[in-house]
Parts: sequence; structure tokens; C-alpha cells
Amino acid sequence: WNQTWIWVGHICQIPNPGDFFRFDYGPESILVVRNREGIVSAFLNLCRHRGSRVCVESSGNKSVFSCPYHAWTYDLDGQLRMAKEMATCFDKKTHGLLKVHLKIFQGLIFICTAQDPPDINKAIEMLSPLTLPFRLERLKIANQKSYLVSANWKLAVENYMECYHCAAAHKEYSRSHSLKDPASITSDLMTSLYDASKMAGLSNTNVSINGVEVEDYDMDVYFARYPLYSGYQTGSENGEILAPLLGDLKRPFGGANDLQLGIQNNFLIYSDYVVGYRFIPFSVKSTDMQVVWYVHQDAKEGRDYNKNDISWLWHLTSLDDERIINTNQEGINSFHFVPGPLSEMEWGIRAFYISYLRALGVRSGFS
Amino acid sequence: WNQTWIWVGHICQIPNPGDFFRFDYGPESILVVRNREGIVSAFLNLCRHRGSRVCVESSGNKSVFSCPYHAWTYDLDGQLRMAKEMATCFDKKTHGLLKVHLKIFQGLIFICTAQDPPDINKAIEMLSPLTLPFRLERLKIANQKSYLVSANWKLAVENYMECYHCAAAHKEYSRSHSLKDPASITSDLMTSLYDASKMAGLSNTNVSINGVEVEDYDMDVYFARYPLYSGYQTGSENGEILAPLLGDLKRPFGGANDLQLGIQNNFLIYSDYVVGYRFIPFSVKSTDMQVVWYVHQDAKEGRDYNKNDISWLWHLTSLDDERIINTNQEGINSFHFVPGPLSEMEWGIRAFYISYLRALGVRSGFS
Amino acid sequence: WNQTWIWVGHICQIPNPGDFFRFDYGPESILVVRNREGIVSAFLNLCRHRGSRVCVESSGNKSVFSCPYHAWTYDLDGQLRMAKEMATCFDKKTHGLLKVHLKIFQGLIFICTAQDPPDINKAIEMLSPLTLPFRLERLKIANQKSYLVSANWKLAVENYMECYHCAAAHKEYSRSHSLKDPASITSDLMTSLYDASKMAGLSNTNVSINGVEVEDYDMDVYFARYPLYSGYQTGSENGEILAPLLGDLKRPFGGANDLQLGIQNNFLIYSDYVVGYRFIPFSVKSTDMQVVWYVHQDAKEGRDYNKNDISWLWHLTSLDDERIINTNQEGINSFHFVPGPLSEMEWGIRAFYISYLRALGVRSGFS
Repeated sequence: WNQTWIWVGHICQIPNPGDFFRFDYGPESILVVRNREGIVSAFLNLCRHRGSRVCVESSGNKSVFSCPYHAWTYDLDGQLRMAKEMATCFDKKTHGLLKVHLKIFQGLIFICTAQDPPDINKAIEMLSPLTLPFRLERLKIANQKSYLVSANWKLAVENYMECYHCAAAHKEYSRSHSLKDPASITSDLMTSLYDASKMAGLSNTNVSINGVEVEDYDMDVYFARYPLYSGYQTGSENGEILAPLLGDLKRPFGGANDLQLGIQNNFLIYSDYVVGYRFIPFSVKSTDMQVVWYVHQDAKEGRDYNKNDISWLWHLTSLDDERIINTNQEGINSFHFVPGPLSEMEWGIRAFYISYLRALGVRSGFS
Repeated sequence: WNQTWIWVGHICQIPNPGDFFRFDYGPESILVVRNREGIVSAFLNLCRHRGSRVCVESSGNKSVFSCPYHAWTYDLDGQLRMAKEMATCFDKKTHGLLKVHLKIFQGLIFICTAQDPPDINKAIEMLSPLTLPFRLERLKIANQKSYLVSANWKLAVENYMECYHCAAAHKEYSRSHSLKDPASITSDLMTSLYDASKMAGLSNTNVSINGVEVEDYDMDVYFARYPLYSGYQTGSENGEILAPLLGDLKRPFGGANDLQLGIQNNFLIYSDYVVGYRFIPFSVKSTDMQVVWYVHQDAKEGRDYNKNDISWLWHLTSLDDERIINTNQEGINSFHFVPGPLSEMEWGIRAFYISYLRALGVRSGFS
Repeated sequence: WNQTWIWVGHICQIPNPGDFFRFDYGPESILVVRNREGIVSAFLNLCRHRGSRVCVESSGNKSVFSCPYHAWTYDLDGQLRMAKEMATCFDKKTHGLLKVHLKIFQGLIFICTAQDPPDINKAIEMLSPLTLPFRLERLKIANQKSYLVSANWKLAVENYMECYHCAAAHKEYSRSHSLKDPASITSDLMTSLYDASKMAGLSNTNVSINGVEVEDYDMDVYFARYPLYSGYQTGSENGEILAPLLGDLKRPFGGANDLQLGIQNNFLIYSDYVVGYRFIPFSVKSTDMQVVWYVHQDAKEGRDYNKNDISWLWHLTSLDDERIINTNQEGINSFHFVPGPLSEMEWGIRAFYISYLRALGVRSGFS
């Protein structure tokens, strides 16, 4: 986690100078702040004096951050402005909040606490033209929920990485989404998807880069579209569109678009909304699955969309996942557990293993 | 625990084909299942695919076990019947549920997850003729309760292994049971017990095999009877019989019969009911004392016995034990704790230490 | 903790023969008992048989302590009086409750479980004449509260050791106490304090011994007075005296008197009440801040003082501390935390570090 890029939020959360939000994972806390000039930066939420949290609020607007312990005070650029009664040789300039790497990709904010973070620009170069029509920078949050599972975060990511379990575990999803059964993705369905995509204004290019395919790049990047069954225009109960079309879309494309940028950061783009998924470790066996639903920034709750309808499908699916991930963790706690063979549909897990082992410094011996 | 035989239940819980129950301890979960031919087997409740629990119910009747995660499906013999989308070289035959050793002793079901389990047949050979008149296979469950103690399971077993604490801690038990005070077991009381036993149809043979006496056998086996005080026919509040006499008994024998088969599995047999005791570790300092009360299988609740009367004595006694075991654990957490000398009445603890150390591979240096 | 003197209570808690109280910290439990001759002793609350707690009550009056497990019975001097069914060679004399060191300093009771405790007599010699006028042995408890913080005890001690945080975190305290701002302690204020102290009957001698100043003594000893702002006679909301003057005081001295005897034991003496502070570790990240308010033993609740008024200031201050210590612990859990520079006002922390490291056997390399 300290070596990889983490999706922490969206610029719509901090439109104005002084706006900030806090993002916590494991024992860490990050402040994402927009300064007076409009520049967004990220800092460790950690006082340089005795290590207290500097900010205890989860979001808001401030002109300075004043530590609740001894009132050391930092400005929006993290510079230490006030520290009383220090020795005369004390240098405020070297005691600002510690800055962490931050990158904004079409409105989505990513941070990385590593000294030398993976090259996210290369990933963004590949993805930018493909995601462009969705205008991800013009989103607003429609809903967000979190699902606490008593399992290691890797089990939660594994769960997201494959749809081999979808038919067995996700009734609602399976009714409309073809991914749960590769055999059902007929050439007819794919032809329809391609046609609808073109008419919506989308190219049909996919990207899939992960540990399996590419040896010399250390971020997983994935962009691919799969069809919904006939009668479904989006991830909704009755198949109908739930909100204004995203970005430059001319019409619904009748599919679901997977987007992955780093192993922990996953998005699913429909014609009318986006679901973001992240899996936050709090301890070895405690993980927070955080789900955020985005719609077009101009859409108005009540008039243009209904919050509960937007989150209907992936709320139910997440409750299923919560249950099966817990049951999975229970089992692998056993002294007798040995991993079994992966199915053909679980290539995403194999990719995850390789990427994860690579991040730990293990480069071979697994295929 | 993974090296020893564990008493997990009784055949009365799974009379019909497809009946099963689940038994959990520490991080493990075991499925005990009766197949179509009536054969009872035990399996690790662990999917051979990704390690999920295969069965989340605690008991029931099924024709197959279908994993809640990816729907790998196993039959009542543990054979893998269905696993979608696997590679063509995948062999279902080698991916059945892992079987564990199972032995039924007069209806009582024992399992062992070790590769080479201790020789339980030798124990059963010794005990069978002695327990025969009680017809343990013809029992039904009258009640069961569990008592969670914040203590290591060994403290709970130690507590059961000695009656030195009975006079101090168990008011109700002490009123009727002579074991709490060896001096009170006069030859008169013993003569009465022998006579009553004979008239009930019981032999007066005892068995006591444990680490102290026998060096080359790795299971503790114990069978002995001790008298109740005059006026008490069974473990009841007023001394009267509470349920139909067990098995072939012609009349009450006026005593309590200890039965031990392995260090963790203990039973107390009265003329009219049986209490089973086991001490399930959940973590280093969390143990579930599980108590099961059995009566004759033909006895009918309400008509032939009252559930609360049957469990009165050992429910109160278990509440006492819960309290004193917790207080004991609190004390031995101290950095200053050193074990003290055992009393003459605590020979059972010494036997337990030796058996336990032997199971860990320590064979000498303690007496 | 097992190497240092711990303040556990006051003689006013056990005025009569047979009176006792229990003091728990971490996994340890101590019994403080007054015997028939009036002598006060302290024992480990640990049965010499199987290690159970001997006493489960927190205070009371007893003629003997009888273990709840097997009824081993100890007298008020810790001698084992009864242990049934032991081997004939068993020697009761060598199985009494284990005694720990105990020292009473002007009514305040200190214990130490070390074999060779630090030389507390030297500390008492220095402090005795200074604290004498307060007659600490003639106190009674007005109130006590405990504040559970999810932090290591050292963070709680550090918090008490410095007043650099007072201005930022303690609104009520800062209004009346000058310590929060060294610059505010003008010579005028000090002159007033000296004068008032003299008129109250106090000398103006201070003592400050800690790791920084003295290399060859292993207890921290501190006694110093600082002024309250004009209009404040004691730590009260309106500045007025809240209870009868302590001991031999002829009038209020208009200040607050810090008293420290060992790194964990802190007292604040006003003209009319005393606050005792200790920080009890329960686990690595769980600490109980225990606060005791004392008044003159003849004062009568309702008539001479009001319990809530007495505890007003330090209850609010402790709630603040609870919050900021928790926030501090959250921050230092981070993998990115490195300690920052201490301010001039935090000399007490530096002293604490040195004393603590010395107790761990580290003697140099830090300044």
C-alpha cells in the first residue's frame, strides 16, 4: 500500500481554495488540500512536532491546519507557520507537513506515499484517449457506502478481480451482465455492443496490461467493455437509464466498461453512472470495501436521478461480496488450507498474484 | 487439537441420509455427514478451489454441498461433482473435500484431523464392555449449553480434571456428590455403590489409563464410579430420578460414572442421564465449554423428563466453573505467577500435564 | 512498571484492621491490607496453589482471604492458614502470599514489585519537610474518576510532563494557571506567590531531580510551585476557595504546587485540595488515566465542599487530555512517524525519556 498509487477521491470534493478531505488507510492518514492558487496537494496528516494528527475532521474548508495538541500551525501548502517556544536554531522551513505524491487523472485523485512511485503517467497516457468521452472530470458523487469485511484486503481484491463467482453469488448482477458467463457472450451480443459503442461515440479499443502480459511495467492497467443482456441499457433493476448520459455520449452504449488503474483501484463505467471500488486495509483481517457512485455533475438528485436507484445494483452485489469474502476468510484461516487450482475465468487473480508478488520484489517462479 | 480425537456429537443428530452437522474449533470447521448408504463420514469444511467454507449452516439435510462462492459442488461422499470453466486437464477426482478420521463409539462420534491418529480402537476395546449396559447409542439430546470463558482451554480441562475445588466452589454438587471429599467416601458408601451397581446390572470394573500409569499408549482412558450421598439416586435437586433409566439398567445405581476417552472428552453417566463435556479453544485465551445432556432416546420431554431439571445441576456447576476459571486465568497472566504444588486430590491434573506434554513430544523429566 | 514505585492509594482507604483494597495494573493485581496490629502490607493477589486471584473484590474488610478456587486461606499477614489434602511434606510457611515492597509517605501509599526497588527513602527525605505543612496524611477522597485512552501509557505520562500543550488544548486551565505560558510568569506574579506562600506558612524551596540533572539516582523527584493569575486562589471556576484549607496552611497561597515522586506518580496541591494522577497500562495501547481528588479529612461533603466543584477543572482538563492523547497515538502509529524536535517548554519530556531509558538499562547517548 505504501508502494502503490491509491485512488482517494475526486476533484468535485474540493472545488474551492481551502477545501480539503482526509483519506485514511491502515495506520495512515492523508490530507488532500486545494490551496489559494487552486493547486491540489496531499500531505501526511502527521504533526512534525510530536506526531499527533493535525486534522481530525474528515473534510471541510480551512485557511490553516492547527494541531490540536500544541497548536503548531501549517498553511495550505503544508508550510509550518507557527511553533511557539522553540529553540532559536529551530528551522520552520524544514518542518512542514510531509508531502506525498499526487496525480489527478481526469478528475480522479490518486496519491502514493512511496519515495519513487510507479510511473502513473504511462498508464494515464494509455487510458486518457479511451476514457475521454466519459468526461470523468465532470462527475459528482451520487452516493457512497462502505462495507466492513473481516478479511484481508487481498481477498477482497481477489473477489473483485474475477467474475467466476458472479453466477453463483450475484443474482441481480447475473440477470443483466454477461460477464458472469463467458459462453453467453455470443458474437451477436458483441456486435451489438460494438455498434452501440460507435453510435455512442466510443472507440472499441481495449487495454490490458498486467503482470502476466508485461514484465517491465509495474502498474496494472485495464480498460474493456462487456455487453449487458438485451433489454438492459445500464446497471439498473429494469434495464432503463437512471441518470443523464455521461460526458460526450450521444446515446447509451448498452454495456459496462471496466477501468483499472493500479491493482487496488477499480471503476465500472455505465452510460449514465460510474462506480468506484477500493479495498482499504485497517488491519490484517479487517478491510473496508468503499464504493462511490458518480453521476454527471449537472444531474440533480430527485429531478435527474434517484440516489437509491443508482446504487441499487452494486449495493446488493456488495452485500453478497461481504458475505462470501467473510466465508472465504474463515476457511483460509484453517491450518489445512492449501490454495486450489484457478479456473479459466480467474485470469484476473493470476494477474493480481503476479503484480502483488512483483511489488514485494518477487519476480519469477509463478505462472 | 489437530493430533487428538475430539468428541463432536452423537449419531442421534444425523439419523437420515443427507443429514449433517458442522463442528467448529479454533480456525477449523468439520462437516459430519451421513451419505445415501447410511455411512457417516467427516470432511474439512473447506472448498478445494479457493478455500471458502463450503457449508455455512450448522446442521441440516442436503443432497450436495455447493460452495457459496463459486458453486463448486460436492456430493455426500465429499466427491467434487461440478466445477465450471476449469482447464481441460483438471481432475475432479483429486479435488474432493478432504476427509478426516472418524470413529463412532456406541453412538458417540469422534473425529481426528491428524495423519496418524492415536489408536482409539484400543481404548474402545477396553471401554466397550463397561459402557455396554448404558446403551450410549440409544440416546437423544435433552439440552445443550455453552459457556464462554476468557481462558486457555487447558485451564478449563484442568478444572474438570480435579474435584479438589468442588467443596469450595460447587455448593449444589457438593451436597450430593462424594467425590469432593475423599474422606467422606467411607467403606459403607462404597459397599452400597457396589451392591446397587450389581443390582442395576453393572460390573464393578474400573479402567484408568493415563500418562502417569502407562508409558506406551497415547490416549487417556478412564472409567470409574463414585457414590452419591444417601438419599441421592442421581444428579438432581431432590435426589430423585429425573428420566427413564438408561439402556439395560434394572434400577438406579446410586452413583455417578466418570468416562474419559482422550484428554478433552469427558462424560458423566448417571442412571438416567449423561452429561458430555468438551472444551473448545477459539483463541489462546478464549474457550467454549460445551455441555450436552443426553437421555434415553425414547424419553419424551414434558412426559418423561423436564429439560431444565435434567440440566439444573451441571448448569449451575458450569456457571461456577466459568467464574473460577476466569479468575484463575487472570491470576496466571501475572508476570509473578509460578505454579504451586498440587494436592493429593489433583492427580488428574498431573496425568493431564503428562499426556499433554507427551502429545507435544516431551516424554520425560516430569513426575 | 515492575521496577518502579507506584502510588496505589491513601491510608484513609483502610483505617481499620482487616480493611483492604485491590490495585490492578497490566496483568498484575496487588492487595493492600491493614492487619490486626494496624500494620499495612501489600501482597500479590495470586494464590500460591494454582495461581487464581485470591480476592475478587475491589475493597472491603476481611479477617482472612480465602481463594475462590480451592479455598486455600491466607491471614491478614499473607500467611497460609489452611490448605486441605496436601502431601504431608507440604510446608505452609513457605506458601504465603508473596509480599511486595510498600512505603507510606505522609499517608500516600506506594508499592514496588521489584526485588531491589529504587531508594524511595532518599526521595522522601527531600520532600518531607516541603510537603509537611499540607499534612497529606490527613486527607480524604472527595472524588475519583478514570479516563480510558487508546494509547500507550508513555504518551499519557508525556502529556502530563509538559504544559506546552496547555494553551492550545486546555481552555479552562489556561484561564487561571500561569504555567501554560512561561512569558506570563512575570516577576510580579512570582513575588506575589512567594509572599502568599510565606504568609500561608510555606517555605519557598523547590526540588527537581531527574535524569537530566542527576546521574546517580534512579527516581524522579519534583516539588515546585507556580502562580495562579490574579483573582484565582485555587483551581476553581470562579477562583474562590472550594474547601477547608489543607493542613497547617494559615491562608491560601495563590498557587499550584507540583509534586512528583517517581515518573508515574504526580500530584498537584492547591491550598484546599490535592489532585493525584496516575497512568495505568492495561495493554500496549490501552491506558487508564486515574485521577483522585483529596480534601481535608474533616471536610464534609455538602457542608464544606461540593464534590463536582472540586473536580470541575481537572475533569474537563482530563477529557481534553483523553482526546489529544488518542489523536497523538493515532498519528504515531503511522509508518511515516519520526519524532520531531521538543520545545523549550518540554524539558519534562526529555527528563522522562532519560529516566525511562535508564530504567531499561540505557544510560547514555541521549541529551
